[in-house]
Amino acid sequence: MVQPLEIQLERCKVKKIKPPQNQLGFGVYFTDHMFIMDYSLEKGWYQPRVVPYQPIVLDPSAKIFHYGQTVFEGLKAYRTEDGRTLLFRPQKNIQRMNRSNERLSIPQLNEKVVLEALELLISADQDWIPTEPGTSLYIRPFVFAVQPALGVSPSTHYQFVIIMSPVGAYYPEGVNPVKIFVESEFVRAVIGGVGEAKTAGNYAAGLNAQENAKKQGYSQVLWLDGIHKRYIEEVGSMNVFFKIKGTVYTPSLNGSILDGITRSSIIQLLTHWNIPVVEKVISIEEVYEAGKDGSLEEAFGTGTAAVISPIGELSWQDDKLVIQNGLIGELSQRLYDALTGIQKGVNSDPFGWMVELDLTP
Amino acid sequence: MVQPLEIQLERCKVKKIKPPQNQLGFGVYFTDHMFIMDYSLEKGWYQPRVVPYQPIVLDPSAKIFHYGQTVFEGLKAYRTEDGRTLLFRPQKNIQRMNRSNERLSIPQLNEKVVLEALELLISADQDWIPTEPGTSLYIRPFVFAVQPALGVSPSTHYQFVIIMSPVGAYYPEGVNPVKIFVESEFVRAVIGGVGEAKTAGNYAAGLNAQENAKKQGYSQVLWLDGIHKRYIEEVGSMNVFFKIKGTVYTPSLNGSILDGITRSSIIQLLTHWNIPVVEKVISIEEVYEAGKDGSLEEAFGTGTAAVISPIGELSWQDDKLVIQNGLIGELSQRLYDALTGIQKGVNSDPFGWMVELDLTP
Ligand SMILES: Cc1ncc(COP(=O)(O)O)c(C=O)c1O
Ligand SMILES: Cc1ncc(COP(=O)(O)O)c(C=O)c1O
Repeated sequence: MVQPLEIQLERCKVKKIKPPQNQLGFGVYFTDHMFIMDYSLEKGWYQPRVVPYQPIVLDPSAKIFHYGQTVFEGLKAYRTEDGRTLLFRPQKNIQRMNRSNERLSIPQLNEKVVLEALELLISADQDWIPTEPGTSLYIRPFVFAVQPALGVSPSTHYQFVIIMSPVGAYYPEGVNPVKIFVESEFVRAVIGGVGEAKTAGNYAAGLNAQENAKKQGYSQVLWLDGIHKRYIEEVGSMNVFFKIKGTVYTPSLNGSILDGITRSSIIQLLTHWNIPVVEKVISIEEVYEAGKDGSLEEAFGTGTAAVISPIGELSWQDDKLVIQNGLIGELSQRLYDALTGIQKGVNSDPFGWMVELDLTP
Repeated sequence: MVQPLEIQLERCKVKKIKPPQNQLGFGVYFTDHMFIMDYSLEKGWYQPRVVPYQPIVLDPSAKIFHYGQTVFEGLKAYRTEDGRTLLFRPQKNIQRMNRSNERLSIPQLNEKVVLEALELLISADQDWIPTEPGTSLYIRPFVFAVQPALGVSPSTHYQFVIIMSPVGAYYPEGVNPVKIFVESEFVRAVIGGVGEAKTAGNYAAGLNAQENAKKQGYSQVLWLDGIHKRYIEEVGSMNVFFKIKGTVYTPSLNGSILDGITRSSIIQLLTHWNIPVVEKVISIEEVYEAGKDGSLEEAFGTGTAAVISPIGELSWQDDKLVIQNGLIGELSQRLYDALTGIQKGVNSDPFGWMVELDLTP
């Protein structure tokens, strides 16, 4: 970017009524403002602006509708007890977004501009950051192709948007283990595909399996690799970890799973605590064997939404595996407490993960 | 659907200026009207309407932007020399759309309503159907998730839209063979994924490889299977055929390629002509061997846009294979003439493929 972009701010005339903090849910309510920035081949990224939350208006031939050229991110802002506002590793999200953009032939974003946009947008909507335990402000940056043309080729025009939603406690009654269905028919992604990018099509591909799992009483799907249907990939919108005989294992970044920011933070935390943690190819048989011979001590998912989600049961080809008696394990709880403590500014932040925002009134 | 839906018609006030027929391109200009129909869990599909071509207005949290829950189709209307308007196998497109919808957890469309919508929309825009040789009216039905919520689950609300674009001759100077790059790194789809559905994410996944191919002078990518990177799948937006020692081969419908309507028509035509045609698993090695020993006689792609696209050269792992001296083969030409002849109403239509529209003035 040649010259720094000046972000315009247009405040809303009327503020929305805020929902009660115990009824927020996830991604249902949106704040008063949003950020928009446009891109054209000629101008690059231009006209960054914070504006009142408003509809997106697109030609029906816009490429997003037809060829899915789009990428998104998800991160959270937290309000501390002493009134500071913290973001959890936002640079990591912007860097991942740019890796996704690269894969989807979408132009790169300037990290500094996006960080400034976050700061200005959150400033404008700071009264939307919820304060109750477990709540946070979920931030959804996304970029999409808007060129009005049906040829299958990368768009010449894009829009980058950030919207924000106050979200409720993921676990209103204490961290609760989930039941996970191991999918053996449908495939989410394969090496060489777009599995490691955070792009819409990956989620569309998983809806069917997820609905099937729900009907059978499972809350999410554990994906196996697309080639052998044997090696563990990830869970819905979480990476996954298994504690076996004191060592924690997680699938290596093989190109078809998301490089989760919670995942990498958990690996750092475990290393810091001198708990052995290994990234490797893990087969579902291995996990089942460890489950049956008693050496599988804990299993949990990691992601921005739930932070840590203990797995109480797996079901793979009609074989049910109850883990840790369906209760949360000691390490899962410790990781959850440590990470949410850092995020909420209660614990110290030895890794320098939190970015404190300088909110203008 | 309980009661038949009455389609409303709101005509545009001002008609657009039409572009010259020799400058149409593909999917660049759009007609004066479009069709819209809404869906909600409570009401099902409702309020079908032909309205002036207009922007789509969506909440920024609409699921299409984030999770890619969307499906599209592509078909063409032709104007015959004696002034009739013909659609090529439109029911096949609607049926395929419903199969795609099924895979993407999108509600089924009523075939009769969609056909009526096509008829009414084309009636309203009949002066947009170009008449010059090789031109046609390209029709793009698409459906997308509009629920304003960030939870990853099938949408409760959808919009189904049809837009239309007059398109130019694909081969203004006679059918021209293309050069195709055989992709060995990136993967478009895998069995168990969404490859056989016509959904946006599949096209997004292919943009990168396509751009690489273009840079090297190839017009499209030939995809290999995602598991062995060995078996031939399809080309960009075409299915693919190889004529070896008098027999025509095409990859079988394995679940990861599109069930092309041109493909199935070509198979019917060949069978009708007593030319042996075989659907089977085909490896890229086989094709190269046949190319090197002289038994590969022709290769061509099939799809709505180009109808038949002869392949003059393949490039696989730096090994270039020139086919039929880079010229169009006899059978490719015969198939092209036969199929476009039926579509344009010049040849008789032994299979009952064409649907003549009863256009109201
Ligand atoms: C497919 C997928 N895997 C893993 C994750 C976890 O990533 P993170 O920890 O960065 O939220 C997410 C959610 O963001 C996801 O969508
Ligand atoms: C991926 C893909 N394969 C094949 C085809 C050819 O299908 P059809 O002959 O129905 O146009 C298309 C285009 O529609 C396509 O997008």
